[in-house]
Amino acid sequence: MDKRKLILDCDPGHDDAIGILLAGRDPSIDLMGITVVSGNQTIDNTVRNALNVCQYLGLDVPVYPGSPNSLVRVRPPVAADIHGSTGLDGPVFEPLTRKAEGKHEALYIVDALRAAEEPVTIATTGPMTNLALAMRLAPDILPKIKEVAFMGGSYGLGNVTPAAEFNIITDAEAAYVVFNSGCKLTMVGLDVTRKVLCLPSVVERMERIGNRASRLFVDLVKFFNKTQKEIFGWEGGPLHDPLTIAWLIDPSVLTLKPMHCTVDIRGTEGYGRTNCDYFGYHKQTPNVDVAVEVDVAKFWDIIEEGIRRYD
Amino acid sequence: MDKRKLILDCDPGHDDAIGILLAGRDPSIDLMGITVVSGNQTIDNTVRNALNVCQYLGLDVPVYPGSPNSLVRVRPPVAADIHGSTGLDGPVFEPLTRKAEGKHEALYIVDALRAAEEPVTIATTGPMTNLALAMRLAPDILPKIKEVAFMGGSYGLGNVTPAAEFNIITDAEAAYVVFNSGCKLTMVGLDVTRKVLCLPSVVERMERIGNRASRLFVDLVKFFNKTQKEIFGWEGGPLHDPLTIAWLIDPSVLTLKPMHCTVDIRGTEGYGRTNCDYFGYHKQTPNVDVAVEVDVAKFWDIIEEGIRRYD
Amino acid sequence: MDKRKLILDCDPGHDDAIGILLAGRDPSIDLMGITVVSGNQTIDNTVRNALNVCQYLGLDVPVYPGSPNSLVRVRPPVAADIHGSTGLDGPVFEPLTRKAEGKHEALYIVDALRAAEEPVTIATTGPMTNLALAMRLAPDILPKIKEVAFMGGSYGLGNVTPAAEFNIITDAEAAYVVFNSGCKLTMVGLDVTRKVLCLPSVVERMERIGNRASRLFVDLVKFFNKTQKEIFGWEGGPLHDPLTIAWLIDPSVLTLKPMHCTVDIRGTEGYGRTNCDYFGYHKQTPNVDVAVEVDVAKFWDIIEEGIRRYD
Amino acid sequence: MDKRKLILDCDPGHDDAIGILLAGRDPSIDLMGITVVSGNQTIDNTVRNALNVCQYLGLDVPVYPGSPNSLVRVRPPVAADIHGSTGLDGPVFEPLTRKAEGKHEALYIVDALRAAEEPVTIATTGPMTNLALAMRLAPDILPKIKEVAFMGGSYGLGNVTPAAEFNIITDAEAAYVVFNSGCKLTMVGLDVTRKVLCLPSVVERMERIGNRASRLFVDLVKFFNKTQKEIFGWEGGPLHDPLTIAWLIDPSVLTLKPMHCTVDIRGTEGYGRTNCDYFGYHKQTPNVDVAVEVDVAKFWDIIEEGIRRYD
Repeated sequence: MDKRKLILDCDPGHDDAIGILLAGRDPSIDLMGITVVSGNQTIDNTVRNALNVCQYLGLDVPVYPGSPNSLVRVRPPVAADIHGSTGLDGPVFEPLTRKAEGKHEALYIVDALRAAEEPVTIATTGPMTNLALAMRLAPDILPKIKEVAFMGGSYGLGNVTPAAEFNIITDAEAAYVVFNSGCKLTMVGLDVTRKVLCLPSVVERMERIGNRASRLFVDLVKFFNKTQKEIFGWEGGPLHDPLTIAWLIDPSVLTLKPMHCTVDIRGTEGYGRTNCDYFGYHKQTPNVDVAVEVDVAKFWDIIEEGIRRYD
Repeated sequence: MDKRKLILDCDPGHDDAIGILLAGRDPSIDLMGITVVSGNQTIDNTVRNALNVCQYLGLDVPVYPGSPNSLVRVRPPVAADIHGSTGLDGPVFEPLTRKAEGKHEALYIVDALRAAEEPVTIATTGPMTNLALAMRLAPDILPKIKEVAFMGGSYGLGNVTPAAEFNIITDAEAAYVVFNSGCKLTMVGLDVTRKVLCLPSVVERMERIGNRASRLFVDLVKFFNKTQKEIFGWEGGPLHDPLTIAWLIDPSVLTLKPMHCTVDIRGTEGYGRTNCDYFGYHKQTPNVDVAVEVDVAKFWDIIEEGIRRYD
Repeated sequence: MDKRKLILDCDPGHDDAIGILLAGRDPSIDLMGITVVSGNQTIDNTVRNALNVCQYLGLDVPVYPGSPNSLVRVRPPVAADIHGSTGLDGPVFEPLTRKAEGKHEALYIVDALRAAEEPVTIATTGPMTNLALAMRLAPDILPKIKEVAFMGGSYGLGNVTPAAEFNIITDAEAAYVVFNSGCKLTMVGLDVTRKVLCLPSVVERMERIGNRASRLFVDLVKFFNKTQKEIFGWEGGPLHDPLTIAWLIDPSVLTLKPMHCTVDIRGTEGYGRTNCDYFGYHKQTPNVDVAVEVDVAKFWDIIEEGIRRYD
Repeated sequence: MDKRKLILDCDPGHDDAIGILLAGRDPSIDLMGITVVSGNQTIDNTVRNALNVCQYLGLDVPVYPGSPNSLVRVRPPVAADIHGSTGLDGPVFEPLTRKAEGKHEALYIVDALRAAEEPVTIATTGPMTNLALAMRLAPDILPKIKEVAFMGGSYGLGNVTPAAEFNIITDAEAAYVVFNSGCKLTMVGLDVTRKVLCLPSVVERMERIGNRASRLFVDLVKFFNKTQKEIFGWEGGPLHDPLTIAWLIDPSVLTLKPMHCTVDIRGTEGYGRTNCDYFGYHKQTPNVDVAVEVDVAKFWDIIEEGIRRYD
């Protein structure tokens, strides 16, 4: 079987880190590069976090830093309340020897896609700033994008405002560009990610694996669960980002429904909302496959399998 | 026990009609007046429908017609796809002998509240145009409003747009006035009303009662279920409006959560959305008690009991 | 010649006061009533100011108080920086013996128009709250409105924000209702009112008349000029409101151009702007006659003539 | 005297072409490159037009093509009503031998600024798409921008909508990025460019010069005047774009006033408006020097001088 060529665009962040873990060793994935945006924390922090995770897990993947800004507006505050002051509070890493690449992430995306012999998948688990920049800088790359799978949005309730989810509201204009790009899009939003709660029983299960990856998982999740509990009140934090990677590994983990979706870039209360025509009421051509159900048990199996791939 | 003094503001509409049925004979309710707005159909149709329902059920309650317009914008199209060309397609009524009152609904609300010796409850199951007009025309009535319970809004998915529910989007400016009025507000939105689906088993149960009200219920619901199936795809239509009345009769039918809620009057895609801060993330003082859970079995018991109060 | 039946809706305010002065004794005008809204100051202040002006000038016209609120939103702050803490700082009035009428202004407009045998002109020189309320409460009055002439808006630069003028932004939703009412509308906006600057030479000219009205004019303008100088930097304050009344007296004082005009009720920076299609670029049917030029010399003649009509 | 290093970003367009003519031979300007965006016409047309003008005038300046899209939204329609189907209808050019550079305009801006030893001026006379892209791709170039002078916006009336001017509304998000970049900005908007009307006397004056550049000027203006007359009704078309270049050559041609300016990216009617706080009412730090007066006679002298610099 041919491996899926993948660029993973992320802003680690605890759940992003587990996304890297999942993608890093999966036999169905050829992880070409990790591109890093600001979001959960500043660009300096998210780049360092990505490098730390790669070094810890022994992943030999280039890491490209992207823009500190949003495509248009001033970047809203980072999510320090959720991810701590480093963006990856919890684990303690050894001194960093890995270095980020010199090329700007958006240019890397442009160059990598132009050079690719077959279409490349892009998974984003952070704000879509750099993918949008790449699309605008080089519209010729669009046919080289096999598909974009992203954690972001919600057709129900948001998590930053009642209307909007973090990755989208952090750069709604960038999301707008991607949603209107004509690319094949799969949205893994809060509607499903809120259902994969990392409850104590899950933490125990992964802890029992007992390898290096298992220790990282547990250190990450223990901090993450604490802040999620304080803010949202649930017993286990939702593992938003890894669900997108899990779907790339095994599409049966999600039920998708094609919908016509827009990103609100004009509203005030509604800014950053993904308005998804769930019922097809407006009879417009669907542009996004939206996740509506998740097989929670299967998801934890994929996570366990992913952890076990490390020594 | 003192009866609750109630003005019922509605735009019948199949589910509004069942709301009238419920409120009309409940021993805990003193139904002072029915005020009628355009919404599900034009004002002429909704007034006639209210009169027909009252006449058929033998309810001696005055019916006041309100405004054909929204408070500010041009009234959007009526919901003929859901409620048919009369707004109450299905039942066949005898010739109408009842007449609407001459006083405009907003003025009736003003006069009734000024004259009331004790605070009055207002239940709205249509757009809030006339309640808003009354509040603006006579701010002195606000202390006379015991509370406003309304069917409308959604903190999740809308039903007219992905963002907005019918009663609110039909006159979002009016809803904005009510949401910011300082009155005690209870929102019975799609989040719960979508769960009280009038499935075939429910229709059969109510049909077995076999009285006049039962026949009306069945005639209404059979038509309503048909259009809901065509548009939204579910097997039984959601009985939106009666749930508000059911809560007035027995508050234990709903679980409420106080939230800070705004009505979007500035958005384009987001216009008419009720943005409810479910998680209290923004730490603003709650202004609405929002229904988050419904005891479906209890609801159908209340409906059956309501039907059985007629001969 | 038949006198023009006029209801003057205002929020005095220095320039409103001079509008009352002009309309009060003009032989072509039958001033039926003065209706008062909040705006330049709170409703209590503007009502008292209207009564003071009427009492001082010996005008036997009923004064009706209107709403303290805007049609939808929270009323923005009053213009105390321009009009002082009373809304009419400058003149000293004798103790007030006149009283406001008990009927709400919007209801007065409804009742007066329903009772009128011939269509009535409405001039508004404040926010349009109560006219909009009347139109929504009783759409049957629309054919009884001969025309609405109003001070408000700008197709160029605003004066509260770069986009919007005070009377419109104070209740843009109300203006929206009036602009879309289908009534004949004449807009006397900042584009022309900024040109009738009450320069020292004008103040001297009116002072020389030496009657009671002249003294009121001078006392008003001296205070008004001071605050206008401080805020906008010009040598004489623009006499916004009286220009509308002057046009009713002598239409040749303004050059009008029919335009399609909208009121922005959705914007953030643009909220309250009157967007007037000056060039007819969008080929929509004009709904407003917009003043584009003013004969400044003629305006001051009309003012002088108006002042001389008093003893 | 050191020459001003200049990148001219334009979308020719008749008035852009005259801007190239002015900048091409002025002894105070070192024209490093011409970057071309879509706007007045599609990118293919505007690039060809720029090349044609350079070839005709014998200007040896590299021409870089930029993005066919706006930064975020779908590019609105081109201005074929004003500039004809080629974007430069009127003159007839010889077959084109010049070629555009291969590098994308935004990348050229990034590379040229990074390489520059002294800060570079950027003049934009079209939508600001590529300047914004460059700023977002490489924030490190900001200190290398000496200043940005642009034709665009209006604090009064727009020319595409009542609120907005063409260059800004065509890519308001890009303008938003530039307005908030912290760069020194000079706005040459419709408020002044509408005053430099190319009346018949001007055309005759420039025609009398009788050189190659004069013929181009006359051919361009004759077509341009015709469409401007049809749409806006004036006798001579306004030479919008060259006024920006004229100001770089001789700053005394414009009177500037520092203002705090925002670009409306959220509005509907107001989308693309430059809201300029002319009166400083809101006491925010000015970010743009806005042209408020123009010395029309001096402008035509600069134009004549510019034309005479060619053979």
